[in-house]
Amino acid sequence: MSVALEQPDSTTDSRSRRSGGREARRAMRAAPLADDIRPVRAGLEGGRYKALDQNDLERIHEAVLTLLETVGFANAIPSCIEALTRVGASYGDDGRIRFPRELVLSTIKNAARHFTLHGQDPKHDMKVQGKRVHYGTAGAAVHVVDVEKREYRESLLQDIYDAARLVEGLDNIHFFQRPMVPRDIPDPLDMDFNTLYACVMGTTKHVGTSFTVRENVAPALELLYAIAGGEENFRARPFVSNSNCFVVPPMKFAEDACGVLEACVAGGIPILLLSAGQAGATAPAAIAGAVVQAVAEVLAGLVYVNALKPGHPAIFGTWPFVSDLRTGAMSGGSAEQALLTSACAQMAQFYDLPGGSAAGMADSKLPDIQSGYEKGITTVMAGLSGLNLIYESAGMHASLLGFCLESLIIDNDMLGQCLRCVRGIEVTDEALSIDTITEVCMNGPGHYLGNEQTLRLMQTEYFYPAVADRYSPKEWGEKGKPDLLQKAIEEKKKVLATRFPRHVPRHLDDQLRLRFGNLIQLPRSGMGG
Amino acid sequence: MSVALEQPDSTTDSRSRRSGGREARRAMRAAPLADDIRPVRAGLEGGRYKALDQNDLERIHEAVLTLLETVGFANAIPSCIEALTRVGASYGDDGRIRFPRELVLSTIKNAARHFTLHGQDPKHDMKVQGKRVHYGTAGAAVHVVDVEKREYRESLLQDIYDAARLVEGLDNIHFFQRPMVPRDIPDPLDMDFNTLYACVMGTTKHVGTSFTVRENVAPALELLYAIAGGEENFRARPFVSNSNCFVVPPMKFAEDACGVLEACVAGGIPILLLSAGQAGATAPAAIAGAVVQAVAEVLAGLVYVNALKPGHPAIFGTWPFVSDLRTGAMSGGSAEQALLTSACAQMAQFYDLPGGSAAGMADSKLPDIQSGYEKGITTVMAGLSGLNLIYESAGMHASLLGFCLESLIIDNDMLGQCLRCVRGIEVTDEALSIDTITEVCMNGPGHYLGNEQTLRLMQTEYFYPAVADRYSPKEWGEKGKPDLLQKAIEEKKKVLATRFPRHVPRHLDDQLRLRFGNLIQLPRSGMGG
Repeated sequence: MSVALEQPDSTTDSRSRRSGGREARRAMRAAPLADDIRPVRAGLEGGRYKALDQNDLERIHEAVLTLLETVGFANAIPSCIEALTRVGASYGDDGRIRFPRELVLSTIKNAARHFTLHGQDPKHDMKVQGKRVHYGTAGAAVHVVDVEKREYRESLLQDIYDAARLVEGLDNIHFFQRPMVPRDIPDPLDMDFNTLYACVMGTTKHVGTSFTVRENVAPALELLYAIAGGEENFRARPFVSNSNCFVVPPMKFAEDACGVLEACVAGGIPILLLSAGQAGATAPAAIAGAVVQAVAEVLAGLVYVNALKPGHPAIFGTWPFVSDLRTGAMSGGSAEQALLTSACAQMAQFYDLPGGSAAGMADSKLPDIQSGYEKGITTVMAGLSGLNLIYESAGMHASLLGFCLESLIIDNDMLGQCLRCVRGIEVTDEALSIDTITEVCMNGPGHYLGNEQTLRLMQTEYFYPAVADRYSPKEWGEKGKPDLLQKAIEEKKKVLATRFPRHVPRHLDDQLRLRFGNLIQLPRSGMGG
Repeated sequence: MSVALEQPDSTTDSRSRRSGGREARRAMRAAPLADDIRPVRAGLEGGRYKALDQNDLERIHEAVLTLLETVGFANAIPSCIEALTRVGASYGDDGRIRFPRELVLSTIKNAARHFTLHGQDPKHDMKVQGKRVHYGTAGAAVHVVDVEKREYRESLLQDIYDAARLVEGLDNIHFFQRPMVPRDIPDPLDMDFNTLYACVMGTTKHVGTSFTVRENVAPALELLYAIAGGEENFRARPFVSNSNCFVVPPMKFAEDACGVLEACVAGGIPILLLSAGQAGATAPAAIAGAVVQAVAEVLAGLVYVNALKPGHPAIFGTWPFVSDLRTGAMSGGSAEQALLTSACAQMAQFYDLPGGSAAGMADSKLPDIQSGYEKGITTVMAGLSGLNLIYESAGMHASLLGFCLESLIIDNDMLGQCLRCVRGIEVTDEALSIDTITEVCMNGPGHYLGNEQTLRLMQTEYFYPAVADRYSPKEWGEKGKPDLLQKAIEEKKKVLATRFPRHVPRHLDDQLRLRFGNLIQLPRSGMGG
């Protein structure tokens, strides 16, 4: 890290807005609303889009049970074998663990559901259940998109911290799973620890992160317990979850990730059970088959977690990806991806388990019209399907290879629109507007511009973007044809120069730095006080 | 018109694709497929997204009947009053026509449904019924977006012809309603006639157009009958519909448009009954209320059309738009627009009438990330809702003020993705893939790359974009970081230099030019032979 970013006079909530001239009126009307009357918020209920029928869901479920019973999983580590056989799984001569259907069904029945994923700040708590929708980041991009140079460069620890700080102020991004890996930190322990540190110091929203090996979990837990003010506090409100790729599709356990999973379960960290097969490569090319395999894999993980600790919070993380079958390359921005993700949302609902899957991954390398429609289509369908946790939904490009800080800011507007669509249409006597229409037509001015209903609904029913442009061509020309990317670049620079979240007090940060020494590589950045 | 575009050696279907190196394999695999195995096509069944419940639909219907009965319409012209009172509407002392509910219900029952909108080429015929989805253009933009100069310039007759020629070869744009007005032709008759001429000469797909006044319909009919080879032929397969704004919302007839409507009904032209209120300005700000008013208005139009000629084909064209209530400006790219359009799709289905509404209008002035997500969200929701005719879905910017030829090409890919999403997920025994997964895991290579299922589904289940970019960052860098807009510019230039549809024979064009003299202002452009 070359630059320390000490800026003692700023606050966490310093999200400001453009103003000037006619803008003043817009700004005033666009000023923050009380949470209960905001047109969009975290946890709105989706589910009006159903990619699958009830019969489809049941057939997928049956296929899943068959596969778990007959094919099962290879490559279980000894502690995994021990835990799974103890609860009734069988370990075959062919080295595969198989799951009797009664074991799977009883696990589904008894697994943790309707739990909360906590933020460091309780206002960011997420109740992940039913068809409640939350958008957030995720990924392991190895590049940052430099939109000014139109270049991909290696992602650094500072980028993770910067992304966290941006997300802290973006209302429609509800959680922050680490979206990049710090290429400047080659050592796995250093990398895991500092990634986590950069995330939890950068945002008070719920954080997701990964660990390379089991041994790296202990120092992370020590850090988290310290920030929480004690182990009990963390266990009561765990504000970090473990994004865990416990499976190497098709149907094999990932040894290192399983070790991490066991350590996280023991330490009180919720698990995102992440199955990331790629249709046509590591999962069937048939969309239904890719869903079947993903569900089977995640349910195996769910049995594993519950064998270790009954009722430990786990997210049903069916994340099947898509291949462009002409090249074998991943295509995160494809229609097939939107369908896979939406189907997975319904499978989670079928089991009444908190579901997480991926949407918003653009194939396009830059924030351009292609990435816009790829993100728009996939994120709105995930939301309308009622997916509880929509990972990868902001900032991601090049099918997970490049993360873009400017896109975070732009995507926040897009996700606001998606949330407005998720919220849907209120059909009440008042909303049907018979009286309003009658009055306007029969006695009124013949239009609704100054109508009482119009003024009342202006803030509660209509979503207004923060940076997107709704000028007429004439206004747009008069303003010098503003470019959205340029606006996002400026907003990013302003926020990163001024927002230094200080939810972790300075004296605690001092203690952590003393305790962990060289392990902390992110320079002090204005936290504490 | 300054440039004539004679290019006698080209054909209608000369859509070519990039090739070279590794591209050859991609191109081969992306070669046109037989219609029956293509992953997407016109008329796929939507309806898996339902913005409204059955109860909502019934409440809207009831509110509509109440409004038609109690408020009715002002400003009917004498022939309209005559036609409507003849079938049972009342003409009040206050000058308003009111519609008894029995009249409305019997009209709905007896109106034309399940009809076909024809193309000049029957392969482009559209069966508009049920939840069958078709995407197309529309609009009355007064500007063309010049993406090279980042400029809005006045739209010209040549632009309409060029848009038609582009659409002719874009598979996922199924019809061509005139998207711009020719600013170089001030005289209304010249404008109407040449707009129609440019459309029908530019594409063999179904065309929609408008007329300014009743008197302009006759020469247009003469033109159309001539192209069809006689009036009977046109009446049997009308390949042009009239986009008719017969209503000035709220609840007033538009006098000139009503005259046009009567002439089109008499002449055998299907009517798009277009109600284009703007929520918060000329329609209620409440989304449900805007839907109520639009449905009431279109049903009044439907009674009118059926009073003139029972069973005349009419499209249920509820097109409520959205205001940004902070400024009163239209916001076609908004979430509220997506909801309005999707709700209207369901109301058409509720009546089993062919529905048309608008989606894909970006607020953004240029083809950028904002226009991408605005278009993506609104067009996919319209498709998933099963809207029969999705107008404005390609090329439109600045909330209908600017049309972009390059966006047509880019949006064609986006609409292909939308259609793939509409098509949905096949859940069959084969697609569930139990055997495939078992084989790959137990006996196979542990992946699906060369699997028989993968190869079989590669072309039938997966949609591949024509111009969008799926390169990895590395490939993308090696190729010089191709820009999608630049690709679209090149594709546009190539197509416009080579595609001169010749479905109207040269000798007929000669006759038309002889007959209509100076009325035809588009230079001969390679049609005929």
